[in-house]
Amino acid sequence: MLKLSKLASSIVNPRSVASFSTMNPSRIITRSAIFTEHGNPSDVIKVKEVDLGDLPSNKVALKMLISPINPSDKNQVQGVYPIKKVKSVLTIVDSKTNSRTETECYVGGNESIAEVVEIGPDAGESGNGKVNVGDWVIPMSTGDVGTWTTDAFADPSSLVVVRNREGLTPEQVGSVRVNASTAYRMLKDIVSLNKGDYVIQNGANSGVGQVLIQLAKLWGYRTINVVRDRDDFEEMEKFLKGLGADIIIKEDQLNSDETKAMMKALDAPVRLGINCIGGKPSVLMTKYMANGSYFATYGAMSKLPTSIPASTFIFKDIRFVGYWVSRWYKLNPVEKWVEMWDELFDYMRQGKLQYQVMEPVDWVTRNPGKDGSTASVTPVDIEALEARVAASMDSGKKQYFRYY
Amino acid sequence: MLKLSKLASSIVNPRSVASFSTMNPSRIITRSAIFTEHGNPSDVIKVKEVDLGDLPSNKVALKMLISPINPSDKNQVQGVYPIKKVKSVLTIVDSKTNSRTETECYVGGNESIAEVVEIGPDAGESGNGKVNVGDWVIPMSTGDVGTWTTDAFADPSSLVVVRNREGLTPEQVGSVRVNASTAYRMLKDIVSLNKGDYVIQNGANSGVGQVLIQLAKLWGYRTINVVRDRDDFEEMEKFLKGLGADIIIKEDQLNSDETKAMMKALDAPVRLGINCIGGKPSVLMTKYMANGSYFATYGAMSKLPTSIPASTFIFKDIRFVGYWVSRWYKLNPVEKWVEMWDELFDYMRQGKLQYQVMEPVDWVTRNPGKDGSTASVTPVDIEALEARVAASMDSGKKQYFRYY
Repeated sequence: MLKLSKLASSIVNPRSVASFSTMNPSRIITRSAIFTEHGNPSDVIKVKEVDLGDLPSNKVALKMLISPINPSDKNQVQGVYPIKKVKSVLTIVDSKTNSRTETECYVGGNESIAEVVEIGPDAGESGNGKVNVGDWVIPMSTGDVGTWTTDAFADPSSLVVVRNREGLTPEQVGSVRVNASTAYRMLKDIVSLNKGDYVIQNGANSGVGQVLIQLAKLWGYRTINVVRDRDDFEEMEKFLKGLGADIIIKEDQLNSDETKAMMKALDAPVRLGINCIGGKPSVLMTKYMANGSYFATYGAMSKLPTSIPASTFIFKDIRFVGYWVSRWYKLNPVEKWVEMWDELFDYMRQGKLQYQVMEPVDWVTRNPGKDGSTASVTPVDIEALEARVAASMDSGKKQYFRYY
Repeated sequence: MLKLSKLASSIVNPRSVASFSTMNPSRIITRSAIFTEHGNPSDVIKVKEVDLGDLPSNKVALKMLISPINPSDKNQVQGVYPIKKVKSVLTIVDSKTNSRTETECYVGGNESIAEVVEIGPDAGESGNGKVNVGDWVIPMSTGDVGTWTTDAFADPSSLVVVRNREGLTPEQVGSVRVNASTAYRMLKDIVSLNKGDYVIQNGANSGVGQVLIQLAKLWGYRTINVVRDRDDFEEMEKFLKGLGADIIIKEDQLNSDETKAMMKALDAPVRLGINCIGGKPSVLMTKYMANGSYFATYGAMSKLPTSIPASTFIFKDIRFVGYWVSRWYKLNPVEKWVEMWDELFDYMRQGKLQYQVMEPVDWVTRNPGKDGSTASVTPVDIEALEARVAASMDSGKKQYFRYY
């Protein structure tokens, strides 16, 4: 059984990496979103060409397909995320003069889906066996080196190969490691639910929330979904109902008489609460939860703490826990990861599970062929790309970097 | 196996009770601390003589020995405690005119130690077997009828007999049901501690806190005790060290550099946090707790909620639970209660466990004999008693009612 702690996590160490544009054919050059100091992401993130040198004999060369842009990634750039990045010394290439400068900096991003394009002669096995050129791989660790880069070199032992990607897009594969797995595990690991039990969650329209609704439906549980009011509320409500949401409550209606009456009339207990918001509305959810139930926090979009009165602990016996899927990955062998991911991929192939639709931020220009699909890609002007990446840092929309 | 839920809890129902002073020999009269409306305890609590009638054939007559005066008892009088009392219709006797008035009211108090003085001919067994005159009994439930009364009738099935009271005082026996058992169970039930592990608790000088220090010492754990600064701090520190406290920290020093350095140097993890205070200092304790540890709240003396940042849940994986020993009693058979109590009584007999010293508020005048011990007791003037009881409601000291 391979455990993550035993595996060197050298994915996407830009000191080691594969070529996006080879200014000099004997050197490998990638484009990376880097920053040298913490600060406002759209100000401090720069896109640079980085000289990676030749592929080390014990590594594999990766071409990135997609990387999510997570709130936690932005928090890391700001320097306010509890998990800190480690600086690397990169050889930055001035794209005009072709001069090289050694620069100590961070590479943004923590997740990616990549394709293996070359294998060093001494490269070993991946976390789940042999690696082949053309394989899609998922990094095992959301490590401290960055994924917002077109190319990278990686130690194969830090990668998991997607053995059956038939019928899947990079976007589908990319949703599995954090969002889908977080929802999956929270429904499985926190409390043993019975068919028909209710789960109450806030942030129900988030990437995790959408998957949780669908998995709960598939597994026979019911969901009460708390969402903030918004202009397109009816549209979102319809969308979440389409995913399988049983009940939808506006956050500001959590304490209304109507909500109280509805919750009182439920024919099954609310045995699990799921919180990614924090603050007062998250505590209000506990009013509707059964004695002895569990309340799990996996995020804090409001940045507010959850303030719990003693009576909720003592008399309602609600147990408050955190959920961090990275901990699950640390404590479980890769075989278990792959088993879960394959189950999720099957749901996707069967049309039972859709991932949260996000807007792509393209690092390349996609040239359509005659049938409308992408026939070829060409590089974007690097200054235009940097502006695009900076804009994505300020965007309130759910976006991801698309490199293919 | 007898479970509490199956047992009628009719202890100290003043509608049914034994005689303190028999104004009319054919009727049984008790003195009770009653209130008709919620309010400031020293204003609304009155001491009245209550006509209890004759002992019903299926009940036993009890003479109260002691009753604690808990903060939760006072909160019930104020009407702010989540567990509400139920009103009874009592026959109140005017001690001057001997006239009787049927009055709907509450009797204060929830706990007591009593002696069985008479057994109705059809009375059944106690929660743990046969009852005899002279037995000391502990009510099984801190029920919704009151214990602040000199005499009471009770259904024997709602009582547990102390089978071996040799060498024990009513005060020792009286400390076991709530305080000592809460400390005992929190050390046993929340997380499996290893020898040498640290437990951090606030309110360390409370009745529960003092027992927890001593049991932790007996069982090989170590305690970090957080207490508020006060004039007699050194004295209290010495006292707690004498009980076995390993480390004592003033609440306002919880975040000091000195405390941080000391906690960093601990040679074992802090795997359990115990909180009866709430508010900011309670959350500060979690800074020193190990990842994956448990934080249990059993009280909220500050009346403030515990405000928990998401990172404490997610990254530190601290699990926040409540502890209410009443729940344990509900879920476990009386045999288990008696087993625990006997263990605690043994520690007391062996001088290994002392209960929190409290100040008695006497309902009788104790007349010393020639050797200095109490030779006889005589009733206190009822108005003087009422003033004494009212004063106890306002007292900041830890007090209990002594009826013997």
